[in-house]
Amino acid sequence: MAKALITTVPFGDKNRLPLELLENAGIDYLINPLNKKLTEDQLADMVADFDVIIAGTELITEKVMARAPKLKLISRVGVGLDGVDLMAAKKRGIRVAYTPDAPAPAVAELTLGMMLTLLRSVHVSNAQMHEGKWQRIFGRRLAEITVGIIGVGRIGTRVLRRTKAFGTPRILVNDTMPNYELNREFKLDWVTKEQIYKEADLISLHLPLTRLTKNMIRREQLLSMKPDAIIINTARGGIINEGDLHDVMMAGHLSGAAIDVFEHEPYAGPLSQIERCLLTAHMGSMSVDCRTRMEIEATEEAVRFLSGKPLTSEVPQAEYDVQSQGL
Amino acid sequence: MAKALITTVPFGDKNRLPLELLENAGIDYLINPLNKKLTEDQLADMVADFDVIIAGTELITEKVMARAPKLKLISRVGVGLDGVDLMAAKKRGIRVAYTPDAPAPAVAELTLGMMLTLLRSVHVSNAQMHEGKWQRIFGRRLAEITVGIIGVGRIGTRVLRRTKAFGTPRILVNDTMPNYELNREFKLDWVTKEQIYKEADLISLHLPLTRLTKNMIRREQLLSMKPDAIIINTARGGIINEGDLHDVMMAGHLSGAAIDVFEHEPYAGPLSQIERCLLTAHMGSMSVDCRTRMEIEATEEAVRFLSGKPLTSEVPQAEYDVQSQGL
Repeated sequence: MAKALITTVPFGDKNRLPLELLENAGIDYLINPLNKKLTEDQLADMVADFDVIIAGTELITEKVMARAPKLKLISRVGVGLDGVDLMAAKKRGIRVAYTPDAPAPAVAELTLGMMLTLLRSVHVSNAQMHEGKWQRIFGRRLAEITVGIIGVGRIGTRVLRRTKAFGTPRILVNDTMPNYELNREFKLDWVTKEQIYKEADLISLHLPLTRLTKNMIRREQLLSMKPDAIIINTARGGIINEGDLHDVMMAGHLSGAAIDVFEHEPYAGPLSQIERCLLTAHMGSMSVDCRTRMEIEATEEAVRFLSGKPLTSEVPQAEYDVQSQGL
Repeated sequence: MAKALITTVPFGDKNRLPLELLENAGIDYLINPLNKKLTEDQLADMVADFDVIIAGTELITEKVMARAPKLKLISRVGVGLDGVDLMAAKKRGIRVAYTPDAPAPAVAELTLGMMLTLLRSVHVSNAQMHEGKWQRIFGRRLAEITVGIIGVGRIGTRVLRRTKAFGTPRILVNDTMPNYELNREFKLDWVTKEQIYKEADLISLHLPLTRLTKNMIRREQLLSMKPDAIIINTARGGIINEGDLHDVMMAGHLSGAAIDVFEHEPYAGPLSQIERCLLTAHMGSMSVDCRTRMEIEATEEAVRFLSGKPLTSEVPQAEYDVQSQGL
């Protein structure tokens, strides 16, 4: 009987369908018994017996794969591949699938909520009110500011569309592969990242974590931003250096930040000391509809594979190139 | 020399233009020296010498007017008239002006931010993360739910438009004077308030405070809502009974609430004990652009009046009817 290890949690929580798909296909499964993001070692100790991993964002490295002789497929619940060593997988003949489109609506909507929250200091007023303090804080509307979006792919494009609907007069965009088609729909300024850092009032990141984007935003980049700029990261932890973000904000730089993703998750670190830093627990894709769709798609891929059918959402060569060459 | 009392604070804070308008017109002014919302008695003790009040939301009652023999104009910075006894003003020949359009964009945008925040429990996760607790909370997208809007005037219509842009499939609306013209633009269901209470996943209030809307939502109405419903009040304190809201939420009813306006402001009360209750300090109109526009418009009206020119935004008869007859 084929066996699947489900590492991502929660899973099948709001909708049991993914579990039923496995059961109906006669696939044995184990849901991550530690009920939190596994470390590399924890996962290595757990994988020996499994044919498939239905995976979250944990590290699936050469070391993990070496302990998984039966492993033939990694099916990611989500789009980011920074946790999976694609080269190691290819070398061992382990195929990798993902769900690139499913998370986008939920991540984009969370991002918009964070933008509006930060612009009006809702999180700061809420904290003050819960401490019995009344202070009317001035804010800005999206129609008053320049927004910068770094990474204009599936999620960034949605964020762009939603932002534009609020009447934002100027949107600066940056992508390694600019989609100039969008200019037919919007007036966009394709600029360098450095120009976005300097000129945007609000900067939102929608990039994968790669060798090139890791620590892309450090002290130097943060300090080049406007003193009252806002930065949002719903992409991947590690793109903004967390220590540097903490230090510059403690020194009074930036009017706000929203961070949903962290270098090490679960996060417990000093950003929690900063009231104007809005923190959430990697909840970008956690709307019931998107999460369910991601779980179903990743599970269907596993069932298809174990039934000898072709994969429908295998990770394309371009993702291997990004990881091997930092493209 | 004509004298204006500016009761609303902050005033002229982000943009000095309103103060310059008064100075250039040779009008003497005093900004509320207590720097917080005045009580009826505080205002009564302050008002003797002034020709004009450039007013916030404080109570301007018969008792206050009786102490203001020179008062000829109340110029409201904002749209709500629940603080002004219009009948008493009319009887004394005191005219009343307001800025009905200026606050709408800022209030609507804050409301959208609150919707997205509550739907994804951003405020709850943020509080948990600041206490070092990591919990990934499920949420919903606007495209997954039924939204109910009670009061579809200047602000409600904007909220409607923005909400619709997020793909909300079903919007229930209620207004004492339905604007069926909107049905040309959107598919809307005009229903009773009771139907909204029962069927909406998210309810947002955009009504004035009048005899009819005071305590409109009490325990009975709250309990008729879905157990996981969300309610937002960026309109006026007192429309939802705060004690009842506290009690039903403490008992586990409703998945979230966002309250920007309170029966007594500054607010200090038991809603602050409820983590899933998002609280802000009457910040609906507090975007720099809208607040500035409101201050300028209300000041221009005062200058116009004191220069013997006609008012351009005098409160219309319909508002007197609402207040006298609860229409």
